[in-house]
Amino acid sequence: MRIDILSVMPEALDSPLHCSILQRAQDKGLVEIHVHNLRDWSLRKHRKVDDYPFGGEAGMVMQIEPVYRCIEALKQERDYDEVIFTSPDGEQLSQPMANTLSLAQNLIILCGHYKGVDYRIREHLVTREISIGDYVLTGGELPAAVIADSIVRLLPGAIGDEQSALSDSFQDGLLEAPVYTRPAEFNGWTVPEVLLSGNEAKIVDWKMQQALERTRRLRPGLLKC
Amino acid sequence: MRIDILSVMPEALDSPLHCSILQRAQDKGLVEIHVHNLRDWSLRKHRKVDDYPFGGEAGMVMQIEPVYRCIEALKQERDYDEVIFTSPDGEQLSQPMANTLSLAQNLIILCGHYKGVDYRIREHLVTREISIGDYVLTGGELPAAVIADSIVRLLPGAIGDEQSALSDSFQDGLLEAPVYTRPAEFNGWTVPEVLLSGNEAKIVDWKMQQALERTRRLRPGLLKC
Repeated sequence: MRIDILSVMPEALDSPLHCSILQRAQDKGLVEIHVHNLRDWSLRKHRKVDDYPFGGEAGMVMQIEPVYRCIEALKQERDYDEVIFTSPDGEQLSQPMANTLSLAQNLIILCGHYKGVDYRIREHLVTREISIGDYVLTGGELPAAVIADSIVRLLPGAIGDEQSALSDSFQDGLLEAPVYTRPAEFNGWTVPEVLLSGNEAKIVDWKMQQALERTRRLRPGLLKC
Repeated sequence: MRIDILSVMPEALDSPLHCSILQRAQDKGLVEIHVHNLRDWSLRKHRKVDDYPFGGEAGMVMQIEPVYRCIEALKQERDYDEVIFTSPDGEQLSQPMANTLSLAQNLIILCGHYKGVDYRIREHLVTREISIGDYVLTGGELPAAVIADSIVRLLPGAIGDEQSALSDSFQDGLLEAPVYTRPAEFNGWTVPEVLLSGNEAKIVDWKMQQALERTRRLRPGLLKC
C-alpha cells in the first residue's frame, strides 16, 4: 500500500507518522507514506497557496492550482483508488470504512487548511470526503494521521499480535469487556474475582456479558446494525 | 489554561503540539501543555508500565500504579477540572463538548495504549471518557492531540481572525457554504456567478441557502438539534 499526504503544514505530520505501528509498518515495507508540501507546487511568489475568498468572508482559502498540479503529477506515476479530502462535513470515518480502505493499493489524502479549500477541488479532484468527527480542527493533518493509523494497523503483519486487532472494539460490533492486570489489589481496589478464578468457561461468559452490557449502555447504535 | 497529557509514547505528540495554532497559543501564554512520560512514574525494572491481562487474552494492559502516581503528583500542585481518558467507547467528542472544555482551567488527558488500561483507572481516577470517533487507533496520542486542538483554538486570542472561528462548521449548527478563491476560472471550472456579482445581499442569501442545503443533505442530524 502507498499513501500520499498533501499538506501545507507537513511538519505537523512528522512524529505521528514515525511512531509505533505506523513506523514499524513502513520499516516492514507494508506501506509507503509520502508527505508532499503543497507549497512546492505553487507557482506564486513566496510559494503562496491561499487567497481571499470570492464574495468576501473572513479567512483564507486554499487555491486549486497547487493541489491540481500535485495530484496530476502523482496520477501520472500510478493509479489511485481514492483521493480523500479531510473535511468536517465528509462521511464519518468508521471501522467498516477503515476496513475497506485498508484493501486499497494507492491513496491520496489531501489535508484541508485555512478557512477551507476552493470548492472546485472537492467537485473535480476529490473522490471521497472523510470526517473523523463533528468538531472543528486547525487543519487536516491530524485527521490524515488518524485515517492513516486506522487503516495501516489493519494491514496483515502490521500488528505483532493479530488476535489483538481482531478483538478490538467495533471489530465484532461490540465494545470490549473491562481488562485488568497486576496487582490484583491496588489502593483497596480489587479485580473481579471471576478473572482470578482460572475457570475459563466462566471467564468467557463474563466477558461476553460485560461486552454486551457496556455496548447496550454506551453505544446502543452498534447493536442495531 | 493548562493541559497535562500522560502517555507512554510522548514522542508521538511532539509535532502536533508544536505546530500552527497550538504552538502560537502556547507562545502567547494562552495555554501551557505538558506531556508526561508514564514510564517516568514506573517503579518496575526497565520502566515497564504494562503487564498481561488477568483472565488471559491477547495484548498487554497498562498498569494502574504509574498512572496513579503521576495523577496524584499533579493533583498536589493544582485542582483539575477533568481527568480525561481517550477511549473508543467514551462520549463522542463534539463541538459543544469542545466549547465546554475550553472553559476549564486545568485538564489531564490520559492516553490509552496497548490492549487497554487496567479498568480500575477508569473507575477510580478518570472523570470523563472521550472518543474522537467509532474507529480503533494505535494509541490515545492522536486523540489527545485532536482534543487539545479542538479546545485550544477556541481560547480567546488563539485564532488571529476571530470571525473565522465563529463561522466555522457546527458553531451555528450548519455546515459551511462552499468557498472559492482566485482564479475565477481554472481548467474550465468556474466560480458561481453570484459570488462575483458584488451584490452583497444576494451573496449572503446564496450562502445561507447553500449552508442549509448542504446540512440537510450531509448532516440532517444537525438540523434536528
